[in-house]
Amino acid sequence: MKAHLLTIGDELLIGQTTNTNAAWLGEELSLLGVSIERSVTVGDEADTMRRELDRAYDEVPLVITTGGLGPTHDDVTRSVVAEYFGKDLVRDPELMQRIRDYYERRERSMPEKVKALADMPEDFETLKNPVGTAPGLWYQERADDRERILAVLPGVPPEMKAIFNAAVRPRLTERTDLRDVQHRTLQTTGIGESNLQEEIGDLSDLLSDTLHLAYLPSTSGVRLRLTAYGTDPEAAEAQLDRLEARLRERAGRYIFGTGNDTLEGVLGDLLRERGLTVAVAESATGGYLGHRLTRFGGSSDYFRGGVIAYANAVKQSLLGVAEADLIEHGAVSKPVAKRMAEGVRDALDADIGISTTGIAGPGGGTPEKPVGTVWIGYAGPDTTAARRVHFLDDRQLNKELFSTSALEMIRRHVLRRAAQPDA
Amino acid sequence: MKAHLLTIGDELLIGQTTNTNAAWLGEELSLLGVSIERSVTVGDEADTMRRELDRAYDEVPLVITTGGLGPTHDDVTRSVVAEYFGKDLVRDPELMQRIRDYYERRERSMPEKVKALADMPEDFETLKNPVGTAPGLWYQERADDRERILAVLPGVPPEMKAIFNAAVRPRLTERTDLRDVQHRTLQTTGIGESNLQEEIGDLSDLLSDTLHLAYLPSTSGVRLRLTAYGTDPEAAEAQLDRLEARLRERAGRYIFGTGNDTLEGVLGDLLRERGLTVAVAESATGGYLGHRLTRFGGSSDYFRGGVIAYANAVKQSLLGVAEADLIEHGAVSKPVAKRMAEGVRDALDADIGISTTGIAGPGGGTPEKPVGTVWIGYAGPDTTAARRVHFLDDRQLNKELFSTSALEMIRRHVLRRAAQPDA
Repeated sequence: MKAHLLTIGDELLIGQTTNTNAAWLGEELSLLGVSIERSVTVGDEADTMRRELDRAYDEVPLVITTGGLGPTHDDVTRSVVAEYFGKDLVRDPELMQRIRDYYERRERSMPEKVKALADMPEDFETLKNPVGTAPGLWYQERADDRERILAVLPGVPPEMKAIFNAAVRPRLTERTDLRDVQHRTLQTTGIGESNLQEEIGDLSDLLSDTLHLAYLPSTSGVRLRLTAYGTDPEAAEAQLDRLEARLRERAGRYIFGTGNDTLEGVLGDLLRERGLTVAVAESATGGYLGHRLTRFGGSSDYFRGGVIAYANAVKQSLLGVAEADLIEHGAVSKPVAKRMAEGVRDALDADIGISTTGIAGPGGGTPEKPVGTVWIGYAGPDTTAARRVHFLDDRQLNKELFSTSALEMIRRHVLRRAAQPDA
Repeated sequence: MKAHLLTIGDELLIGQTTNTNAAWLGEELSLLGVSIERSVTVGDEADTMRRELDRAYDEVPLVITTGGLGPTHDDVTRSVVAEYFGKDLVRDPELMQRIRDYYERRERSMPEKVKALADMPEDFETLKNPVGTAPGLWYQERADDRERILAVLPGVPPEMKAIFNAAVRPRLTERTDLRDVQHRTLQTTGIGESNLQEEIGDLSDLLSDTLHLAYLPSTSGVRLRLTAYGTDPEAAEAQLDRLEARLRERAGRYIFGTGNDTLEGVLGDLLRERGLTVAVAESATGGYLGHRLTRFGGSSDYFRGGVIAYANAVKQSLLGVAEADLIEHGAVSKPVAKRMAEGVRDALDADIGISTTGIAGPGGGTPEKPVGTVWIGYAGPDTTAARRVHFLDDRQLNKELFSTSALEMIRRHVLRRAAQPDA
């Protein structure tokens, strides 16, 4: 089944509010097998809304709206949808009573305007709002052999979600005309989208109308989304298994997790499982690596802390970097990265030390060491290593990418170590 | 001038990515006086994109697209817009060279598909991408007395923003047909929206149809946006001056900056100007405070570094926190916060030490010290202080709010100190 989303509100157009409702509904609906073809945001304006409803029903049977359901003058959704389907607005006495109760329970006086919340288009179903006053609406009709379904939800995210979960999802899952769809996500890091495509190579023997693969790049890596369509869940699973096996065979070393896994989460679990602790020595990342390693509760199981060695004097005094190395090789160099990692490992009594020393930008680059250059040092229980990586010209992105490289370096070393017997 | 946004990408429709580009562009454009009438998201599908371009130009002269500009098979924007305006795609040799250089500088091999990034519609202007490979596009034509303007931007937010700032904004501000509007923003921190409204009180003698005030709350504080409409720029300025003076009179101590100032930027400038250096001792914030203090280039002028003292043993060994204090008062306590701040100031030879020790959550709370409790310690050249603040249940939000409190505490102490003669 195909659908359009119509999110309503001036605050969305002028960017005062980010449209998280569209993302949430997009995910929930596609997991149900409803395919969102288009998502439109318009202001609180009756004509525009009417035109968008027209366009939507020209193309798809299901429209879901959010917003414009409150009691103020710019909340026009209720009257627009009533008029669109040629229905009158009628005050619902039961709903009126619920609204009165809501205010009484909270010992607040009911503003006059709020009564409009009880005005419902006839023949529409009211969808109870478990967490607020504005109810949702549901309408479906079949005319000229054409079905039109409308779900009207409030714009406040917790209210929208509560009504969707309680009333819209069950109405949709009841239907037998939903296309069966299954998703799987593989998370990769340490390789760009184009290079990953080259590593994976041709998949035309596997991909088809019923089996899709999407590359979804972000600053923490490229997600691979596998989608199988089909009414036979076992056949769909088997298709996904074959595709996943191929991807792992060709690009397995870049795949660190599945679903909504994060690199820091996967690494944290790995460290906890191996009983290893880590400490960070951060120059270029300025604390961002420690921030990522403490992103989840319980990170004290594996994270000891670290030294943010921004000034060279701190690299010397707390991490034992030799002045001679700083003079001879510079702060952004292999020997300094290694020594920082060893120094923090020892000073904080951790199993693993990891360091970043680089040029995040925008200033500080040289022809030999341009902005975006970073040395990552790793000092494990039995190996010390360092690698150089080049990234971009953007400071914040570089901190993100430098720290991702550092997390990935720990992950690879720990996995390699675990793979050796008696290591 | 009216505009439509067209954001492109399957990942937006199925909710894997939240559409932050639409919000960011919505805000930037409305500040320029461009009114976004409609914002549409479609998948990576040529027919749909063509239809949306048609609809947009039926209603408005300016269309801005994001997404679908990468080198993979589902990146169709470049060819759709070329075809829409009846232009051929031509390989741009200069751009090809820039892409080659990009890969060479990073010592990576250039994937074959990336060459498509250099295919540009003829007569389109190329907008350089300062932070990535995919450039933006700009096209405008006047035919049958009708103007059509198109800005094509990549979907990756930092690249989209960089190109918008460098090339789209200047092209738009040049135009004379934008509605006359002037904005001013005051940045506050350390007070919530409702309390700030109370402090500011009634403004009905100043506000009018041509002078608006908006409260824009976020995790770093509440922004006050002042807007004046009118074709007389001097009168508008005078209105804004009066409103700003009133706001400063009533809530000045919460106002740390204007425009796009950030607390870390304002504080950095203040420290640089006073010749003061700072070091951080982070427990609850795990490195996030250091990350914020190194957000801008040149931060080594005032930031020495710090100690991420996540484990209690690190608080003792590197910061000199007494075991007795940890046992008697616990790690989240006034004496520990103070000692951490003093310890890091002394160990890193800084003028100011600042510390955070708290319970970010979700676990670790107790009835006396619930999740969201934090102690911030400050050790300046001549004072040591600590304050306790309570925040929320959300770990990431708490790290944000804890670090904001710490930055604000430094700012207030430095200002107070500077206000004393001979201090």
